[in-house]
Amino acid sequence: MEFMKKAFGEIVTVNGAIHNVRDMGEVIFVILRRREGLVQCVLKHSDMEAVEKQIREGACVTVEGVLIEEQRAPQGAEIQVQRITFLSMPAEAMPVPIGKWRLNTSLETKLSLRPVTLRNIRERAKFKIQEGIVRGFRDFLYQEGFTEIRTPKLGARGAEGGSNLFRLDYFGKKAVLAQSPQFYKQMMVGVYDRVFETGPVFRAEKHNTKRHLNEYTSLDFEMGYISGFEDIMTMETGFLKYTMELLQKEYAKELNILGIALPEIREIPRVRFDDAKRLVSEKYNRPIRNPYDLEPEEEHLIGCYFKEEYASDFVFVTHYPSKKRPFYAMDDPEDTTFTLSFDLLFKGMEITTGGQRIHDYKMLMEKIEKRDMTSEGMETYLMAFKYGMPPHGGLGIGLERFTMQLLGEDNVREATMFPRDLNRLEP
Amino acid sequence: MEFMKKAFGEIVTVNGAIHNVRDMGEVIFVILRRREGLVQCVLKHSDMEAVEKQIREGACVTVEGVLIEEQRAPQGAEIQVQRITFLSMPAEAMPVPIGKWRLNTSLETKLSLRPVTLRNIRERAKFKIQEGIVRGFRDFLYQEGFTEIRTPKLGARGAEGGSNLFRLDYFGKKAVLAQSPQFYKQMMVGVYDRVFETGPVFRAEKHNTKRHLNEYTSLDFEMGYISGFEDIMTMETGFLKYTMELLQKEYAKELNILGIALPEIREIPRVRFDDAKRLVSEKYNRPIRNPYDLEPEEEHLIGCYFKEEYASDFVFVTHYPSKKRPFYAMDDPEDTTFTLSFDLLFKGMEITTGGQRIHDYKMLMEKIEKRDMTSEGMETYLMAFKYGMPPHGGLGIGLERFTMQLLGEDNVREATMFPRDLNRLEP
Repeated sequence: MEFMKKAFGEIVTVNGAIHNVRDMGEVIFVILRRREGLVQCVLKHSDMEAVEKQIREGACVTVEGVLIEEQRAPQGAEIQVQRITFLSMPAEAMPVPIGKWRLNTSLETKLSLRPVTLRNIRERAKFKIQEGIVRGFRDFLYQEGFTEIRTPKLGARGAEGGSNLFRLDYFGKKAVLAQSPQFYKQMMVGVYDRVFETGPVFRAEKHNTKRHLNEYTSLDFEMGYISGFEDIMTMETGFLKYTMELLQKEYAKELNILGIALPEIREIPRVRFDDAKRLVSEKYNRPIRNPYDLEPEEEHLIGCYFKEEYASDFVFVTHYPSKKRPFYAMDDPEDTTFTLSFDLLFKGMEITTGGQRIHDYKMLMEKIEKRDMTSEGMETYLMAFKYGMPPHGGLGIGLERFTMQLLGEDNVREATMFPRDLNRLEP
Repeated sequence: MEFMKKAFGEIVTVNGAIHNVRDMGEVIFVILRRREGLVQCVLKHSDMEAVEKQIREGACVTVEGVLIEEQRAPQGAEIQVQRITFLSMPAEAMPVPIGKWRLNTSLETKLSLRPVTLRNIRERAKFKIQEGIVRGFRDFLYQEGFTEIRTPKLGARGAEGGSNLFRLDYFGKKAVLAQSPQFYKQMMVGVYDRVFETGPVFRAEKHNTKRHLNEYTSLDFEMGYISGFEDIMTMETGFLKYTMELLQKEYAKELNILGIALPEIREIPRVRFDDAKRLVSEKYNRPIRNPYDLEPEEEHLIGCYFKEEYASDFVFVTHYPSKKRPFYAMDDPEDTTFTLSFDLLFKGMEITTGGQRIHDYKMLMEKIEKRDMTSEGMETYLMAFKYGMPPHGGLGIGLERFTMQLLGEDNVREATMFPRDLNRLEP
């Protein structure tokens, strides 16, 4: 904080919101909340009689006083206040005790009172760490020669098709909200070779679970001239290493507030989808029910397996079955029932889906036909391929889910500033 | 480029898309397009007979050959190709000559063929510069202690109200697309003091002009503990200085491709709304028709005035009339028919709207009442104020418009990767 540059004994001026008040008899401890953290101020009752009634949580103030060393206070210092000026007053008393270290309220209350509950020090630390993840993603990719793109969220059709599209009227035309920037980022590989986007995506999924949102932030990249889909996993590993270092360096305060130990990222183990299913079935004595998909419990067990056997919080599960991947996924030439694709599991939960895409126009058209799909409405997407595209692939990372796993939360809403779900459109 | 680290005379391997082919008789010049720029390759007809038919625009290749100094070529070097490997082939010949320096096509064609026309070197340079503007915004604000936020684009009501909202069904409830992150960024000032967001906003405006889009990127920030709305203008000036330096340093290649001279940013002149109207009315002999709003032509003339009189491409127009500003704008206590607000004009066009906001709960409720508005649906926004907010203000910058003015384009669609307007939902 700026004022901490002064020497002890000097006069400082600091503004902030009153986060907490403790009346100790002769003195009042007033804790100010600033963007950088908390500041302990000590006021003498005898000096403050005129304004004492105004000293309450939620008031915004400027204090002037002497900076004193105090190891027990945040920043190792406190301010012995000589003057306090009120910048604004709250109209009502706080509905929940946000000044406490832990907000002991239900998730429902936390979300309904979001503008207030986020003022709690632990709550706001979560989203500071989330900022760090997005910064890490961007900074690492800039460094790797990627270009940042901005693609439209309103379109005539979705990239993945299907039933989970939000639909709306667009000046008399039918429009949908983007489920993913998939088509656009692929088109842009033809322009910049390597591109990324960090933006909202929309999924009209009707299930309310602890890990789904109807609007979330997708960290997407797509890269050309790959030798194989392994290049994508290597790039993601690079991002994870870079980001953990960035968090350790620039977000240590927030990690400390939340007591988060960052995962160590070395080589991330890779396992084929079918092998992964077999391994956990054997080790945990669990029958394989659906050979084409991973159930959440299986993901969880794969996470356990690689934690136990390889001491890794992360594992790439590769070669997902073709029938479970979109038409643009590249089939494995060695066995076309599988694809050159992967998911990244983090502590037993999928946080990334990626893989190599089809880049050849004829192959793409054949796949569309084989799936009984229509290419209607995809003309401009297909145009990119008609006029030549390099071999390429990419991935999408669910930011809130990644944050949730990193923070050890058990509900994705805890890692979402203003979540949108089946029942929640506000705040 | 990586291969340029090698010495002349050494063997290099480079991949890229064939951007241009010139058959010179004995040799063929093949220009490769890579993310960093163009690479000139020379192939001997006699060596290439087996593959000659495949050498066409849009093919993606890997070439191996000797690096030779050649001052007339891009990068000052060319590759004398010994081997060419085809990674992919286009299905058809290019529909427009993207390999030419200037794409001499109509805007309509350019937009309809976007995945291809963006491959033109000048076209793609524009969006690289746009990336630089967003980077500058973020990096400068991180440095100034701002926190990046992500706010929902789906909500129960819009921040500005009015008729220009896209509406949709959200699981049986009425929802709208965010016109602006206004309410959310204000709420978050109560949490982090200083916040910013760079994301899409949606305006269902029915007019098709050269400067309006129905979906655009808004660069928003909001800051607490301001002494006055002048602090916001000072912060924006800081952003502009920082960003012009960043562009000069990291995007010189693209500025050069487009022949852009960046504006010099010193102190930006400030003029009151009513004075600005009077000044241009006098100087350009133009009657004031509407005393409460600036017509586009007036904005243009204000731009001319400050260019001529102050040699500035930028001018802050301050103190807009209250009736033209939203309810949350802070009225000027010295004359409440005006607000403590501003627009920034860049070469005679508004690219920013900002100002101080009301931070007192009672004042805000009174303003809502005075305007015959209902506070229904704004409960969570108002909650932030009820429990205390610092004096604050902020702004929103239209990214595409800013880019358009910087590039000297005359239509905002030229500065939008995939524009959305009354008639365009694709690509």
